[in-house]
Amino acid sequence: MATSPSLHPEDEESLCEPVHEQPPANLRRYASNSTSQVAIIGSNICPIESLDYEIMENDFFKQDWRTRGRAHIVRYVILKWTLCLLIGILAGAVGFFNNLAIENLAGFKFLRISNLMLANKYLMAFGVFASSNFVLIIFSVIITSYIAPAAAGSGIPEVRAYLNGVDAPDIFSPSTLLVKIVGCIAAVSSSLHVGKAGPMVHVGACIAALFDNERLHKYRLTGKWLKYLNNDRDRRDLVTCGASAGVAAAFRSPLGGVLFALESLSSWWRSSLLWRAFFTTAVVAIVLRELIDVCIRGKCGLFGKGGLIMFDVTSTTIVYHLVDLPLVILLGVIGGILGSLYNFLMEKVLKIYKDINEKGIGCRLVLAGAISLITSCLLFALPWFASCQPCPDSTKEGCQRIGRTGNFKNFQCPSNYYNDLASLFFSTNDDSIRNLYSSGSHELFDQYSIIISFLVSYFLGIVSYGVVSPAGLFVPIILTGAIYGRCVGMLMGSRSSLDHGLYAVLGSASFLGGTMRMTVSVCVIILELTNNLLLLPLVMLVLLISKTVADSFSGNIYDLILQLKGIPYLKGHTEPYMRQLTVSGVAMGPLRIFNGVEKVSNIVHVLKTTGHHGFPVIDEPPFSSTPVLFGLVLRSHLIVLLKKRDFLPTCRLTSAGITKAYSSDDFAKKSSGKGDRIEDIELSEEEMEMFIDLHPFTNTSPFTVVETMSLAKALILFREVGLRHLLVVPKISSRSPVVGILTRHDFMPEHIFGLHPLLMKGRWKKLKFEGSPFVRYFRGLLLGSANNSISSEF
Amino acid sequence: MATSPSLHPEDEESLCEPVHEQPPANLRRYASNSTSQVAIIGSNICPIESLDYEIMENDFFKQDWRTRGRAHIVRYVILKWTLCLLIGILAGAVGFFNNLAIENLAGFKFLRISNLMLANKYLMAFGVFASSNFVLIIFSVIITSYIAPAAAGSGIPEVRAYLNGVDAPDIFSPSTLLVKIVGCIAAVSSSLHVGKAGPMVHVGACIAALFDNERLHKYRLTGKWLKYLNNDRDRRDLVTCGASAGVAAAFRSPLGGVLFALESLSSWWRSSLLWRAFFTTAVVAIVLRELIDVCIRGKCGLFGKGGLIMFDVTSTTIVYHLVDLPLVILLGVIGGILGSLYNFLMEKVLKIYKDINEKGIGCRLVLAGAISLITSCLLFALPWFASCQPCPDSTKEGCQRIGRTGNFKNFQCPSNYYNDLASLFFSTNDDSIRNLYSSGSHELFDQYSIIISFLVSYFLGIVSYGVVSPAGLFVPIILTGAIYGRCVGMLMGSRSSLDHGLYAVLGSASFLGGTMRMTVSVCVIILELTNNLLLLPLVMLVLLISKTVADSFSGNIYDLILQLKGIPYLKGHTEPYMRQLTVSGVAMGPLRIFNGVEKVSNIVHVLKTTGHHGFPVIDEPPFSSTPVLFGLVLRSHLIVLLKKRDFLPTCRLTSAGITKAYSSDDFAKKSSGKGDRIEDIELSEEEMEMFIDLHPFTNTSPFTVVETMSLAKALILFREVGLRHLLVVPKISSRSPVVGILTRHDFMPEHIFGLHPLLMKGRWKKLKFEGSPFVRYFRGLLLGSANNSISSEF
Repeated sequence: MATSPSLHPEDEESLCEPVHEQPPANLRRYASNSTSQVAIIGSNICPIESLDYEIMENDFFKQDWRTRGRAHIVRYVILKWTLCLLIGILAGAVGFFNNLAIENLAGFKFLRISNLMLANKYLMAFGVFASSNFVLIIFSVIITSYIAPAAAGSGIPEVRAYLNGVDAPDIFSPSTLLVKIVGCIAAVSSSLHVGKAGPMVHVGACIAALFDNERLHKYRLTGKWLKYLNNDRDRRDLVTCGASAGVAAAFRSPLGGVLFALESLSSWWRSSLLWRAFFTTAVVAIVLRELIDVCIRGKCGLFGKGGLIMFDVTSTTIVYHLVDLPLVILLGVIGGILGSLYNFLMEKVLKIYKDINEKGIGCRLVLAGAISLITSCLLFALPWFASCQPCPDSTKEGCQRIGRTGNFKNFQCPSNYYNDLASLFFSTNDDSIRNLYSSGSHELFDQYSIIISFLVSYFLGIVSYGVVSPAGLFVPIILTGAIYGRCVGMLMGSRSSLDHGLYAVLGSASFLGGTMRMTVSVCVIILELTNNLLLLPLVMLVLLISKTVADSFSGNIYDLILQLKGIPYLKGHTEPYMRQLTVSGVAMGPLRIFNGVEKVSNIVHVLKTTGHHGFPVIDEPPFSSTPVLFGLVLRSHLIVLLKKRDFLPTCRLTSAGITKAYSSDDFAKKSSGKGDRIEDIELSEEEMEMFIDLHPFTNTSPFTVVETMSLAKALILFREVGLRHLLVVPKISSRSPVVGILTRHDFMPEHIFGLHPLLMKGRWKKLKFEGSPFVRYFRGLLLGSANNSISSEF
Repeated sequence: MATSPSLHPEDEESLCEPVHEQPPANLRRYASNSTSQVAIIGSNICPIESLDYEIMENDFFKQDWRTRGRAHIVRYVILKWTLCLLIGILAGAVGFFNNLAIENLAGFKFLRISNLMLANKYLMAFGVFASSNFVLIIFSVIITSYIAPAAAGSGIPEVRAYLNGVDAPDIFSPSTLLVKIVGCIAAVSSSLHVGKAGPMVHVGACIAALFDNERLHKYRLTGKWLKYLNNDRDRRDLVTCGASAGVAAAFRSPLGGVLFALESLSSWWRSSLLWRAFFTTAVVAIVLRELIDVCIRGKCGLFGKGGLIMFDVTSTTIVYHLVDLPLVILLGVIGGILGSLYNFLMEKVLKIYKDINEKGIGCRLVLAGAISLITSCLLFALPWFASCQPCPDSTKEGCQRIGRTGNFKNFQCPSNYYNDLASLFFSTNDDSIRNLYSSGSHELFDQYSIIISFLVSYFLGIVSYGVVSPAGLFVPIILTGAIYGRCVGMLMGSRSSLDHGLYAVLGSASFLGGTMRMTVSVCVIILELTNNLLLLPLVMLVLLISKTVADSFSGNIYDLILQLKGIPYLKGHTEPYMRQLTVSGVAMGPLRIFNGVEKVSNIVHVLKTTGHHGFPVIDEPPFSSTPVLFGLVLRSHLIVLLKKRDFLPTCRLTSAGITKAYSSDDFAKKSSGKGDRIEDIELSEEEMEMFIDLHPFTNTSPFTVVETMSLAKALILFREVGLRHLLVVPKISSRSPVVGILTRHDFMPEHIFGLHPLLMKGRWKKLKFEGSPFVRYFRGLLLGSANNSISSEF
């Protein structure tokens, strides 16, 4: 047996020789990828990795897979459904608990203040209000910062990134789950203008990730059954179901939950997943229903009908006519403008906050405390300017009395009068929204109160989200939108016959459309919240208009946040400039390549000196007549091989039986950055001189593209199939069988513009040169000429 | 300039030389694809073609595309939304018209019979009933057979096939649309046990296809705007929206429509399409609402509340307890078994009918007439065995009187009595379903009547679908299921507290789950039909159980029909045996290849002698140093080039300006088999000796796979990206740059099993050989040995 040619760095260089012998200076083919390999997850900067959805079709996998019988498949299917059931039950229970806790915590706070106010102890009331808010938010910031920084924020961008294939450590860890629940309860109870829906999405995803094999293994809970869920595809499916369950639990909206996940969370979707997600959300709905039934019997403290927003504007049948349409359109247009302005301001504020939060825990606490104090002052000071109104007889709740918290707060007003501004400010967001949505309540709110509360809500929504604490955007936006809708309704006065409650619903829709740009799911959530399918046409019209208007100003808020966080999110559509580039223009060296039978020392060296996760395996003479691409081997698999130390003394092919030394568990994908590291493996001098036959562990069916493939098409392949590595093979057959590897980062605009700075000018435009460079480029490539001019013309 | 090497058949052979020099006999690499290139569309056998969703990135496209400005994009977006609006309006109007016509036609028929029955003219009543049914169905069969055979059946399989990428002539032509509407009205009015929902889906798709550029061009309606919709991608999106609109119009279920299209019609889906489809269905909902408002004022003849099924079981709040669950589970299990039996019997019956229908129009008429007569006899004879019951006071409709058709028919009974069986048989399916779904109606139906009507409905549903006439499956299945549900409810008697109307709803769900195996969409449609979100958990449970049970017996009904029709439907998942095969095992020669600059006579020869639609373009010396793959050129583009006669006198590269002679309209994809044929192009001797430079018109970014790629992964790529051609490139670089082309047919099980008959034995199982053949195969390939043994071991 001949020895394998050793792979010195110089050899590598020659293997990954570029297409053009003299690369133009600004092409920078040897530059390392300029995009960042870290991102902000929650509030901390973490290293991130890509997930791998490709099936590694190596010999070992095929053998293992052939031994699986029918029983295995049945178990696998039952397991998946059982897990969905468990996720649904847990998400429903957590959603219920969240609401119960918030309603009781905030309710107790408001009750105490209201009692003090009724006793005319105004200063003390403010003291209690401000200090309890301050303590709650500081508590939330402290546990988030110290225990689980990944729990900060709404978590929706993180879940979205995960489902797009970006993994980060601790993103779904049990501590994140715990902090997310507790921190969210504290933050929302502290009257901070943040919501609990976003965190519920993250909570749902965390719950799903609890059932991850690896994690259970740590707690010695793993069984024979769970071992099937050992790859990123199954985890992705579980997390998708979990996130759907989270939305469903937050809004008590099973259909809306599934559609939310489908529309704005997940990047890949299958018909079977649709059904599983739907099952999960239905379980959530059942669990919530049963638990709320318990509460209706009055066993849940201050948590009665409230908590789970379930508005009811159906008491009167919705009536609308064609004459109302112009008004609805106007509402949509203004809502779109306000929404995109909201996004714009939010982005600016988040940038400032990011710098503050990065300075340390002290700065975080100061920021959160300041915002809490501002919020407390605003909420307490403004109602003094509102006039007192007599209590309505019509509402069942009536005005508040000592010992109970009604929907209408009297604040500084005499008995049997109420302060409308205080009624909006001194209750949980859910109650405020319910008040605003209620029909037949034209007279309940004063025009100026509504305008003031809109400004306050708009402003507080923007400044509150950035604190380092679990906090959502959804509910504040719904509330602000509802106030905005009432505003429009009031300004119209008698010119419109629409109910003001309906205006509030449409205002919420327009604001959601303007900020989040979600359409179908928002529409369905609103329908399910209001339990009225007849609203559909109007809600849809408003959403369509506000989204269209807002889209022409700025991006959607989650995209903006993803960008701020530096997450390499792979978009589903291609940008115009990508059609102007070929994959060889972005795939860069130096490429690390292994031989089919490779020396241990080479493998260790390459693994230690690079951060790559996939390596092409090339067979060279004597194993083949010419160098030929055998496949792709993964870093994680190589580490397993090195750990096993089952090396060959000489450079030869292994016998077929060798793979029996391994079980499929050895190669199971570890979850979220938990894999073994090369640094932890100690090998002796002797072992370093031995060989490994990589053939049985190499994925023999890697996806490939020819180097002249346009970047746009490569992106489509990469994204649709859900790849982590895409091999670039040469067009002209006389060269090395692989010339590059494309990964997620190679498709990021920052990377591409770094390589081709001139593209930047025409980034969102088309490049207006007259066609010839490409013709020349391809001709040049065909004729083997090295001095093509494409790079200089870009 | 040197002359291009001419491409004689012998040269081709050498170009497409197989991997193995001596292919084993049973590998049959040269065999032509054994799967059929025709399929049954509607009732006729038509040639079928694949659709092409890939963007042809050739120089010409890129130039054309670079000249498009912002205005172009805005126009394009506005156009797409406008078309969705129009599709929605038209689909809503057609759905309304359909219902109006059916209700009035059938209503008039039933009224006439009821008047005769009340006058005791029983024989004459039967005569009128049977003859009117006979005439209506014969009329429907005649127009379908003569005018548009593609309109026969429900059309859902055809729409599904189209959205999967299978095109057939006339599938969406205006005549198909017309016949579908008229024929469906006639068939449903004829008391045949068929539905109108399935045809509505096809109608929606036809309406969408009306706006196809090509078709409008024919009627001189095309404008500057419409020219953008000239590719299969945009057509697919429009048809998806149209089909959603059809479902929405059939069930007045906007959400259900979108989810139906998402779950069971379309094979590709994007988030933006979700929104557009939803918009379309919302328009449908608005249009229907407005039109029904007109009818409520009594301007629509016999069409009042009925027609559009909108059941209302919400009058009483649904109450159910945990003790009812076992019963619901039992209902689901039996429903699943009955459903899969339904599919099984349906398949057998359709096979027989297929042979009969293929014999000609006479046989079709005899078959349809016989079924109509059997139906008439059964429906008229059986109610005589039912007992008369006193009219209930509770129901608003009350018993029928002369001159009006009530919900309760008295048939042979005295005045103020009704015949429950006749009440189910002598009304439209919609009315029957409404009766069955109505709550608080335990006493209205006799146990034996329900059992008899179940048997009749089950039997007639199976035998009626196969007639050559537009006819759906959906409504009969809902009806049969509702009767089945009532049956179970009655058998339970007092042991269950559930309402019998609720049993009927659950029965429908279980039957739909058992036959169609759709889950989310059926669930949503039922929720929207009954306008009661509280039903969700029960409906979902029943669907889950019945689908699971039925799945273990047989496939879903649309898959069975697709298979019967011989449509090469590309499934989304891979079969186990596909992992055992490499693409080189199924991609077959002889491959037709063009040179970069090709002689006209060669192109004409190849186009005339093959039916291929895509040809690899290879550059050979002197245009490149070694043979190198330049890209893929399409037959349709070649024909455009030949028609233009802009040939080169010598074999040389063309100047960049040459493409200016063409406009993008020239290369627009023609719709449904309307393209020019090579036979229609007459070229002179002189022209035949000239050359064409194919470079500017060749797609330089075709998707490629390496020949050792497993078939499963190639299928994933093919399906996810939506390809028509997938080039297979060699692994070892010294050979021809392309060794095969994979098309849709190469992934069909029939083709694969034809090549590898031994796979058949283990078709749905795994292959149990012990791993070594693959290892040996790959080794063999690597070592360049020709005598590998894989084929003989399969």
